[in-house]
Amino acid sequence: MTKYVYMFTEGNAGMKNLLGGKGANLAEMTGLGLPVPRGFTISTEACTRYYDDGGFIAEDIEKEIFDTLAEAEKVVGKKLGDPTNPFLVSVRSGARASMPGMMDTILNLGLNDEVVEGLAALTGNPRFAYDSYRRFITMFSDVVMEISKSKYENVFDSIKEERGAKLDTDLDADAMKEVVKRFLAVYQENKGEPFPQEPKVQLFEAIKAVFRSWNNERAILYRRMNDIPGSWGTAVNVQEMVYGNMGDTSGTGVAFTRNPATGENKLYGEFLMNAQGEDVVAGIRTPQTIDQLKEVMPDVYQQFADIAIKLEQHYKDMQDMEFTIERGQLFMLQTRNGKRTAAAAMKVAVDMVKEGLNTKEQAIMKIDPKQLDALLHPTFEQAALKAATAIARGLPASPGAATGEVYFNAKDATVAAAAGKKVLLVRLETSPEDLAGMDASQGILTGRGGMTSHAAVVARGMGKCCVSGCSDLIIKEEEKYFQTKDGKKYYEGEWISLDGTSGNVYSGKIATEEATLSGDFKTIMDWADEYRTMKIRTNADTVRDAKVAFGLGAEGIGLCRTEHMFFEAERIFAFRQMIVAKTEEARREALEKILPYQQSDFEGLFREMKGYPVTIRLLDPPLHEFLPQAEADIAELATALGMSANELSDVIDSLHELNPMLGHRGCRLAVTYPEIAEMQTKAIISAAIAVNADGGPQVVPEIMIPLVCELKELKFVKNIIVKTADALIEAAGVKMTYSVGTMIEIPRAALTADEIATEAEFFSFGTNDLTQMTYGLSRDDAGKILDAYYQKKIFESDPTARLDTVGVGKLMQIASEAGRKTRPNIKLGICGEHGGDPSSIHFCNTLDFSYVSCSPFRVPIARLAAAQAAIEQR
Amino acid sequence: MTKYVYMFTEGNAGMKNLLGGKGANLAEMTGLGLPVPRGFTISTEACTRYYDDGGFIAEDIEKEIFDTLAEAEKVVGKKLGDPTNPFLVSVRSGARASMPGMMDTILNLGLNDEVVEGLAALTGNPRFAYDSYRRFITMFSDVVMEISKSKYENVFDSIKEERGAKLDTDLDADAMKEVVKRFLAVYQENKGEPFPQEPKVQLFEAIKAVFRSWNNERAILYRRMNDIPGSWGTAVNVQEMVYGNMGDTSGTGVAFTRNPATGENKLYGEFLMNAQGEDVVAGIRTPQTIDQLKEVMPDVYQQFADIAIKLEQHYKDMQDMEFTIERGQLFMLQTRNGKRTAAAAMKVAVDMVKEGLNTKEQAIMKIDPKQLDALLHPTFEQAALKAATAIARGLPASPGAATGEVYFNAKDATVAAAAGKKVLLVRLETSPEDLAGMDASQGILTGRGGMTSHAAVVARGMGKCCVSGCSDLIIKEEEKYFQTKDGKKYYEGEWISLDGTSGNVYSGKIATEEATLSGDFKTIMDWADEYRTMKIRTNADTVRDAKVAFGLGAEGIGLCRTEHMFFEAERIFAFRQMIVAKTEEARREALEKILPYQQSDFEGLFREMKGYPVTIRLLDPPLHEFLPQAEADIAELATALGMSANELSDVIDSLHELNPMLGHRGCRLAVTYPEIAEMQTKAIISAAIAVNADGGPQVVPEIMIPLVCELKELKFVKNIIVKTADALIEAAGVKMTYSVGTMIEIPRAALTADEIATEAEFFSFGTNDLTQMTYGLSRDDAGKILDAYYQKKIFESDPTARLDTVGVGKLMQIASEAGRKTRPNIKLGICGEHGGDPSSIHFCNTLDFSYVSCSPFRVPIARLAAAQAAIEQR
Repeated sequence: MTKYVYMFTEGNAGMKNLLGGKGANLAEMTGLGLPVPRGFTISTEACTRYYDDGGFIAEDIEKEIFDTLAEAEKVVGKKLGDPTNPFLVSVRSGARASMPGMMDTILNLGLNDEVVEGLAALTGNPRFAYDSYRRFITMFSDVVMEISKSKYENVFDSIKEERGAKLDTDLDADAMKEVVKRFLAVYQENKGEPFPQEPKVQLFEAIKAVFRSWNNERAILYRRMNDIPGSWGTAVNVQEMVYGNMGDTSGTGVAFTRNPATGENKLYGEFLMNAQGEDVVAGIRTPQTIDQLKEVMPDVYQQFADIAIKLEQHYKDMQDMEFTIERGQLFMLQTRNGKRTAAAAMKVAVDMVKEGLNTKEQAIMKIDPKQLDALLHPTFEQAALKAATAIARGLPASPGAATGEVYFNAKDATVAAAAGKKVLLVRLETSPEDLAGMDASQGILTGRGGMTSHAAVVARGMGKCCVSGCSDLIIKEEEKYFQTKDGKKYYEGEWISLDGTSGNVYSGKIATEEATLSGDFKTIMDWADEYRTMKIRTNADTVRDAKVAFGLGAEGIGLCRTEHMFFEAERIFAFRQMIVAKTEEARREALEKILPYQQSDFEGLFREMKGYPVTIRLLDPPLHEFLPQAEADIAELATALGMSANELSDVIDSLHELNPMLGHRGCRLAVTYPEIAEMQTKAIISAAIAVNADGGPQVVPEIMIPLVCELKELKFVKNIIVKTADALIEAAGVKMTYSVGTMIEIPRAALTADEIATEAEFFSFGTNDLTQMTYGLSRDDAGKILDAYYQKKIFESDPTARLDTVGVGKLMQIASEAGRKTRPNIKLGICGEHGGDPSSIHFCNTLDFSYVSCSPFRVPIARLAAAQAAIEQR
Repeated sequence: MTKYVYMFTEGNAGMKNLLGGKGANLAEMTGLGLPVPRGFTISTEACTRYYDDGGFIAEDIEKEIFDTLAEAEKVVGKKLGDPTNPFLVSVRSGARASMPGMMDTILNLGLNDEVVEGLAALTGNPRFAYDSYRRFITMFSDVVMEISKSKYENVFDSIKEERGAKLDTDLDADAMKEVVKRFLAVYQENKGEPFPQEPKVQLFEAIKAVFRSWNNERAILYRRMNDIPGSWGTAVNVQEMVYGNMGDTSGTGVAFTRNPATGENKLYGEFLMNAQGEDVVAGIRTPQTIDQLKEVMPDVYQQFADIAIKLEQHYKDMQDMEFTIERGQLFMLQTRNGKRTAAAAMKVAVDMVKEGLNTKEQAIMKIDPKQLDALLHPTFEQAALKAATAIARGLPASPGAATGEVYFNAKDATVAAAAGKKVLLVRLETSPEDLAGMDASQGILTGRGGMTSHAAVVARGMGKCCVSGCSDLIIKEEEKYFQTKDGKKYYEGEWISLDGTSGNVYSGKIATEEATLSGDFKTIMDWADEYRTMKIRTNADTVRDAKVAFGLGAEGIGLCRTEHMFFEAERIFAFRQMIVAKTEEARREALEKILPYQQSDFEGLFREMKGYPVTIRLLDPPLHEFLPQAEADIAELATALGMSANELSDVIDSLHELNPMLGHRGCRLAVTYPEIAEMQTKAIISAAIAVNADGGPQVVPEIMIPLVCELKELKFVKNIIVKTADALIEAAGVKMTYSVGTMIEIPRAALTADEIATEAEFFSFGTNDLTQMTYGLSRDDAGKILDAYYQKKIFESDPTARLDTVGVGKLMQIASEAGRKTRPNIKLGICGEHGGDPSSIHFCNTLDFSYVSCSPFRVPIARLAAAQAAIEQR
């Protein structure tokens, strides 16, 4: 029989999949003999079974929960619901992966009208007892019963008003009793029944509520953003309460073993005396730094600092810890690998190798490649920054530079970003409800909260710049403005700039500059290169992109989209002449004008890539994309082209397609207009001949034919290329090689890859189109559908963003195997957007690809991900 | 070393793939000791090598040709180019499958300025010799050198004028010499060099020209229409000339061993005395019937009649023979299995079994299933026909009834048909250039030509009604009208009707009626049913369709497209209310109105199908298809819906998609609007309960979910169905079963069929969409692309019409195997348009499908094709 419930003494850190991260680490710390409040964990399997059973905890699990509760009661020596010696517990979620703030927590469970009196007597502190009870009622109502917290807050506020109290702490025990009385009435009123007095019922309902919270909207969104499968489920931790709010020798805090922003090897954190656990994270009161604990309670500080070192040595990673001090006694409530900025991650990784704590391999495996993104974000140009004046300064919560228009709530920010604006989200403080708005923003600015507030933690996770706790500013969310100390107001839509590394806030825009590889970052990249087996190329259409990518370590170009080169003014005119041409001669004439531009573009790319391979894709998009749609533009162009607007409209109409994605594009253009492929081949080969003549590293261009679905089609276009290329090479009297290959982006090409490989010298998987066709889902039209599919838990992620290794992956596998069967040394690569996605890179490694190609700024991410894949696959 | 050239004495009928149909049968007849002019065949492999080598006959093949020529000269005792004893030959194409008139032929090859004199001396007939030479020059110029025939015809006409000649026969030997002289000048003028005098050069160029003609436009079109692969190539037959135009004891003719229109077991054919071989087929002179030969040359007739019987017994099939009589001596120039009308095919097949010539199996295998189409065409309603008056009578060349507007050339007919008109093509006579126009027409009417004229042969092949040789009419192609005997003119666009069975031409439209299964046709169908293993279902959305299909033998409905039921006036309004509804309640309210209609539709289908399975597909098309696009219509509908035109336009805009084929449709609609699936399930189950209550055969509805790409999506929709259905069944207190399955029409569904089959109880392959997505090619946008692809020989057929067994077939195989692995008894079927295509049915049989589903009128075709597949696969 499956075991669903584990005492902390039964588990360990290796049981994370079963006990969740929090539960496994509580068990591990218990095993290490650290002071952990006792309790037990209900496993993630119980959660998945809860869902499989249709939202119902099966009887066998229920029995196991209460049997384990009895065991815990015996160990603790207290009893749930016993007024003379009450066992009070917290009920917390804890998934396999950390999902901070996404799911629900209930504290002080076990209190009822009788037990609260017992607690008052036991602690000699009736105010504390009733304060705990009112907190429990609020949380239980909110989390379990979906009664809005605001109903209780309103009542609380009116009592404060009645009693002339300004702060919560101004209310005495009597007042708190009154609060509880009225809270119980609010509950009765909303639910039509009294607040549950039976602690076992409270517990059982709370556990179910935590299971349910696995599928609340913000948890689903967070999972999608972080590639966490919905099938994992959450564990539930039931743990003895300890109280940081029992007076001046009590307190609560969070700390990291190293600085999560810089990586500096020094204990780093915050605490609040006489406070409940959640108060630090919520950021309502501004806390003290962990250093100050040394003065407040030197013994406790030392004990904690020793534990921190022990935990880091034990986990061989930087730890993020929560603790509570109850009347002078330290309790550890959580430890986990700490989230950190990308820069900190680099420093910690390199330092830990130097310290002998990790091997290079271990260091590489511990870095989340996605996080590198933050290191590749622009920083402010130093000159521009000097010229700027700071209007305020907050905490440097998440590094990076951001410039944008200010918006004061998540919704407005999301809408503005969707409209193409650069957005900064400004909030008093953020909550999980703000997630989508934060995601849509360039950076986040908050008026309250510390370095470990919600805004700070989430922004670091997202690799986004954040300045938190900026108390210099008066932020008016409702009125949509903020005011600086000197009285200047900034309204919605005005530009400011944020420096997440210094905490400075600037007025207006500040120019930014690109990141470079240096220091620890470079060290990590060099280590990664020692392990990876796949090459990393870049998708680049311009010399600028190619230069950036080369600087970031790209080993060639995997995809050059030639059509982007047609859009510059002079070229597009010639290209449009080509489109409206009625005869092959007229088309050739127009193409002749584009040829020199294309050739010089290719020369630039070849020079930039210094002999590394460059894959150039022939013209791909449908021709109508090159023509205007608006009437006025059509008229203007018609005049320029020397034709009537009607004639031009007819051309545009004739190019209209019902499903352009499945229409006249890719190599189909080369079949109908071979002269286009001919011109492009000329440009490519002539450019290579010219660059090779420099005497530098020799160019071996790879010419790629897009949208192939059938061998004969590939053969037809390849013939044009080979005929044109060979003639040029012969005429130039030089020796040079080139290769011709194809995109695999249509399901049929994958399915007939054995045939295709008879002619194709390389395959480049175009997983953007391949995914859309394999799913029968157009990315342009998927918005509405995906929303419904997320909501109904049919999809967990957008398959165009994260490679579907099941369906699309199967096609890739079929194609790779069939291609290699025909041509054992065929070069395989990927050039869709998945080429920069770590999990997709991993999959490509399992198929033993030669390379992945991604956008320039993802090259370092791909290098690291490829190294991790290679290490893991060994 | 491969052998490329075969003497007729070296081959036999079994070598058709190598020698082509004509060559293999000439060899077979030679082997049977029949009088066949001697010669040799250059194989189809030589043709494919010609193309592989880039349009070039390799030296080894050239040597083999001339070595074999020398051998033939020895056997015949004549020499190519020897004026004293010249070997004159015909050079004819002959592919594996018969392609009448599609490729080129050259007669009288071997003549030159010297040989023509020798021939004149040998035959004592200078006029004949020069007539032969001028014919050769014309054919060689046209076929080999691409000099238009009209240039020679103009010269010929002016000589006739100069000499006051009305008919060709009015020209004497001198005049013919003059013709030849001027023809040689025309050649010199056009080519800039003299007409080739070296007969070996003539022969070599002619062979290459025949190879080239394999890829002329009309041959490619014919192949596409008849599913003949371009890779087959054509053989070339080089054969001693015999002359039917050597005077009154010479002649030429064609004949069938049985009547190709009715199947009657009686020699049937035509001949012309003193005529060249091509004159009969071209239909320029109206020939005599073969019976009349009995009187003209009784001995030759008897010899021919005996040969006919011998050949039919030998081939065990009706033969189509060509013969020439040279000065009283009979020569067989060709035999092949005769093309026949569908009715004749039925009768011949049944008769030959009765005669003991064939077994039932052999009879089934010899019928082309596609041909049955003709038997399923409507005939005129007897009452309507009695009321009509015939305006002319021609030959009943191809049976059936057709009504349409008259057009006088192929292009006009094609354009009008594309615009949706019912078209009849009226021509003086047809030529291979008219093929596309004939294909676009309902029927063909010609003024000249017999039962074996081009029009007649091609129309029978197409299963189209044809009245040929209608000399009652004066047809003015240029002026675009025809005139009846009483002077009435019918202009382009006027309606007439044709009866291909009687040969009658009627004025105006005549009502038609559906075909039924009876007589020989029924016998053949019954035989087919004895052999086939797959069930045949129909695609039917209406009771009318279901009734027709049931009458033609359908064993259930494989696809009922429910959306077609929404288009009737009252329903579409409610459906549009549903679309514009802003809340679920409003949507449900509108759906509630449609429910009774849907239920009664389904009751009708269930009753019609008498207990056979009925597969009903849930709503599939995108919602925008149900809304108007024109501004006026939008305004009108908005008023009816009680909303502003702007509001409605906004709804329509919001439904617009860039690629609707890959958009919001199929089960994606059920995911976003579960209430639609709920309503449809209610209608289906309630209808089944109602029909079952009659006490007749019990209905087991199969509910089909379209456009599934992922298991969870199928699960979601299936849950809605099951919940709704089970509740209804329980409420009704009845026992009934139903099943839930899915379309496999998205590549990913095929690739993940193992997962999908955990929930799907059946798979129905929707090969229309599956093909489009697998190819990345939208059928709606493919026109231009396909044209180019046919022209450049990349595609040979439209994959949406003929199943691509390589790519799409591989997906089907993957899905079938994976589906069966998960659920061994899973029901597999096909419901795309390929379900009615014989070659696709064949493929489905290899995958061991349970059934194929096709349009009602294709049910008999599918029954026969399935029987053939089963027999062949045994």
